[in-house]
Amino acid sequence: MVGITYEDFLDRSYEPTADDLVCRFYVEPAADMDAEAAASRVASESSNGTWAALQVEGSVTDLSATAFDVEPTSVGGDTPGTDRREGYDVGVAYPMALFEPGSMPQVLSCIAGNILGMKAVDRIRLRDCEWPEPLATSFPGPAYGSAVRDRVFDAGDRPITATVPKPKVGLSTDQHVEVGYQAWTGGIDLLKDDENLTDQAFNPFHDRLTESLDARDRAEEETGERKSYLVNVTAPGGEMLDRVDAVAEAGGEYVMVDVVTCGWAAVQQVRERCDRHGLAIHAHRAMHAGFDRLPDHGVSMRVIAQIARLCGVDQIHTGTADLGKLANEDTAGINEWLRSDLYGLADVLPTASGGLHPGLVPELVDRLGTQLCIQAGGGIHGHPDGTHAGAKALRAAVDAAAAGEDIEAAAEREPALATAIEKWGTETPR
Amino acid sequence: MVGITYEDFLDRSYEPTADDLVCRFYVEPAADMDAEAAASRVASESSNGTWAALQVEGSVTDLSATAFDVEPTSVGGDTPGTDRREGYDVGVAYPMALFEPGSMPQVLSCIAGNILGMKAVDRIRLRDCEWPEPLATSFPGPAYGSAVRDRVFDAGDRPITATVPKPKVGLSTDQHVEVGYQAWTGGIDLLKDDENLTDQAFNPFHDRLTESLDARDRAEEETGERKSYLVNVTAPGGEMLDRVDAVAEAGGEYVMVDVVTCGWAAVQQVRERCDRHGLAIHAHRAMHAGFDRLPDHGVSMRVIAQIARLCGVDQIHTGTADLGKLANEDTAGINEWLRSDLYGLADVLPTASGGLHPGLVPELVDRLGTQLCIQAGGGIHGHPDGTHAGAKALRAAVDAAAAGEDIEAAAEREPALATAIEKWGTETPR
Repeated sequence: MVGITYEDFLDRSYEPTADDLVCRFYVEPAADMDAEAAASRVASESSNGTWAALQVEGSVTDLSATAFDVEPTSVGGDTPGTDRREGYDVGVAYPMALFEPGSMPQVLSCIAGNILGMKAVDRIRLRDCEWPEPLATSFPGPAYGSAVRDRVFDAGDRPITATVPKPKVGLSTDQHVEVGYQAWTGGIDLLKDDENLTDQAFNPFHDRLTESLDARDRAEEETGERKSYLVNVTAPGGEMLDRVDAVAEAGGEYVMVDVVTCGWAAVQQVRERCDRHGLAIHAHRAMHAGFDRLPDHGVSMRVIAQIARLCGVDQIHTGTADLGKLANEDTAGINEWLRSDLYGLADVLPTASGGLHPGLVPELVDRLGTQLCIQAGGGIHGHPDGTHAGAKALRAAVDAAAAGEDIEAAAEREPALATAIEKWGTETPR
Repeated sequence: MVGITYEDFLDRSYEPTADDLVCRFYVEPAADMDAEAAASRVASESSNGTWAALQVEGSVTDLSATAFDVEPTSVGGDTPGTDRREGYDVGVAYPMALFEPGSMPQVLSCIAGNILGMKAVDRIRLRDCEWPEPLATSFPGPAYGSAVRDRVFDAGDRPITATVPKPKVGLSTDQHVEVGYQAWTGGIDLLKDDENLTDQAFNPFHDRLTESLDARDRAEEETGERKSYLVNVTAPGGEMLDRVDAVAEAGGEYVMVDVVTCGWAAVQQVRERCDRHGLAIHAHRAMHAGFDRLPDHGVSMRVIAQIARLCGVDQIHTGTADLGKLANEDTAGINEWLRSDLYGLADVLPTASGGLHPGLVPELVDRLGTQLCIQAGGGIHGHPDGTHAGAKALRAAVDAAAAGEDIEAAAEREPALATAIEKWGTETPR
């Protein structure tokens, strides 16, 4: 007979083993709880605990997590709209046997499940994970990661570039394709669908796919450069697989997935299907801010990026290091993690997007380096001379930054870049 | 040539059409924005807008959303851990043509996508949706909903009951099955896996499935009542479908899915596959609190419940109207919506769970009615005389509440209920 209750999930002397998953939480205990009790409840509810004392016949596999670290900390107040709040940094170690290897939904149901709603805490945020080898390598990781720059393109070490036709929905297939052609021939590597363009009557998926790839072929011939297309296959699970197959048949190299609104079960399924075809995966993160924006609650973008790498996306949006229109969490730190060694799993190529234009490129590359996909929408198509000129401007800015050349010098050679800088300067749009 | 910018997405005189999707947001504008500008940006970024003025050749399908209502409001401060905050209630109407019919990920990428991370707002929460008929009926909705009480069981109008073996992970298959047998024969209708029990070495999925259903058959024979099992099929997409098939082959009536950690693309796929087998779907909502807990940001549980109904789950956890261990958002109001008419789509049977025990049943039924699945874990297995007695106690409490009988009177007939009340009273656990 064993009794299991909420107590005994705290052990400050515990040292995580190499096979433990270690999670770091920000925790604000409820008014009637001390920090140790709250930390213990986090470890309990996310592993095998319940609120009542139990009697169980026979021996039970001990899958208890252990809160081993509880230190005061504070968050917020340093970015617009956030408040400074006082809480605790709590480290929790989970035994490997708690997890179903290779199942991201199951892992999340432990470490980011019921605990986020417990009354025992007022606020709780999963901030970071240290993935042990047996768990990390139970996932496939990316097929290519930053190697797409050489595999799909001939881009060497420069950032690759992408653009989304704007308005992001409403263009006909012909208009969409023409924008793509103008952008590709202006120097952009990747045409990209926006997150809410999938298969609507004004621009059906299959027409857009085949016609875009036809235009891509023409652009490749004209420029002598490799070009590709991030077509958004986001859909209910079965239909999404059909769209992945269609991309392979049509001669594409990539699919794009809205990974958060689809969910990780579907992302893992797409990864498997893409493997069959040798396709790369571009991850859009629409909806991530629903749980990662506030520093005191939810799940951090850092953890979302880790999950995305394990599940096997090759590229993911991680923001612009605060240069764009969207709020960002530690883009530089997340990108560094995406590049870091992880038991031999491939890295992920981070994508910077959201209100970018050519004048922001030097500062962006200064903050984030060149191992990057740089995507601009309005910052290309809003160019006074249109998409083709906007594409030339962005590409010139990127080439200059990659070569360590001053953007003003590049603008002297490329009038389209001079025009872009004249229009937008180096200001961040709101 | 048309110019499209952020402006002109606000029109207070606009009256949403019957085919518009109307969303209600809580919005706190950024420090340098007024409410109208922020509302306009919400409508823009979630439909077809971008930050730069564009020139497009030819006519473009106008898929602009319209912010038609902007009123001051305040949220929070009334529940533990929340602060009172001042903002705006913003109504936005979206044209039907913006959406891909029947694709929940696409809908979410519009109405709960990039806007949640825009710098133009400090906080933003999608609080409610009014689904127009063409969009709502492009989804299947539940196969059965509350009709499971008659279809799977012979439960008439009483709440059905469920229990999760505790500890929720760590029991062997034999132990798990024995707990199920004790609970079923004590009067519980549904054995249920917990959210993080899927297919681990200590209790493999296929063994658990077949052995539990064997025990179910014995319990049915012994009690003369119908019994069933909510087996957790949560897994990466393809594997999840295999598990659904396995449940059908083994003679189950239900699958359980962690809908948020799996994601909606997978839920929609499971719904389709379940249709083939006539299986019902029980939705666990682990991770929902990551984006619905704070009243000033994210996506509300009300909207999650709406999404779940459209995608077609038959049962979903919506909380305990604050009687349990987990924080709850408006359980009564959400349950009412799940029962409401929606163009002929089936309703959803709400599940109350999280720290419940027999003594809380009268108050729970008083707050939420009898169209309910009541689930207790620790409140059954923590009974001083064990699971079988705990099950008898819960069932007696439920039967009494459904019959409008006083729980004390029922406890006089059922000693196990008297013991439960003696142990736990009618207190809410923390």
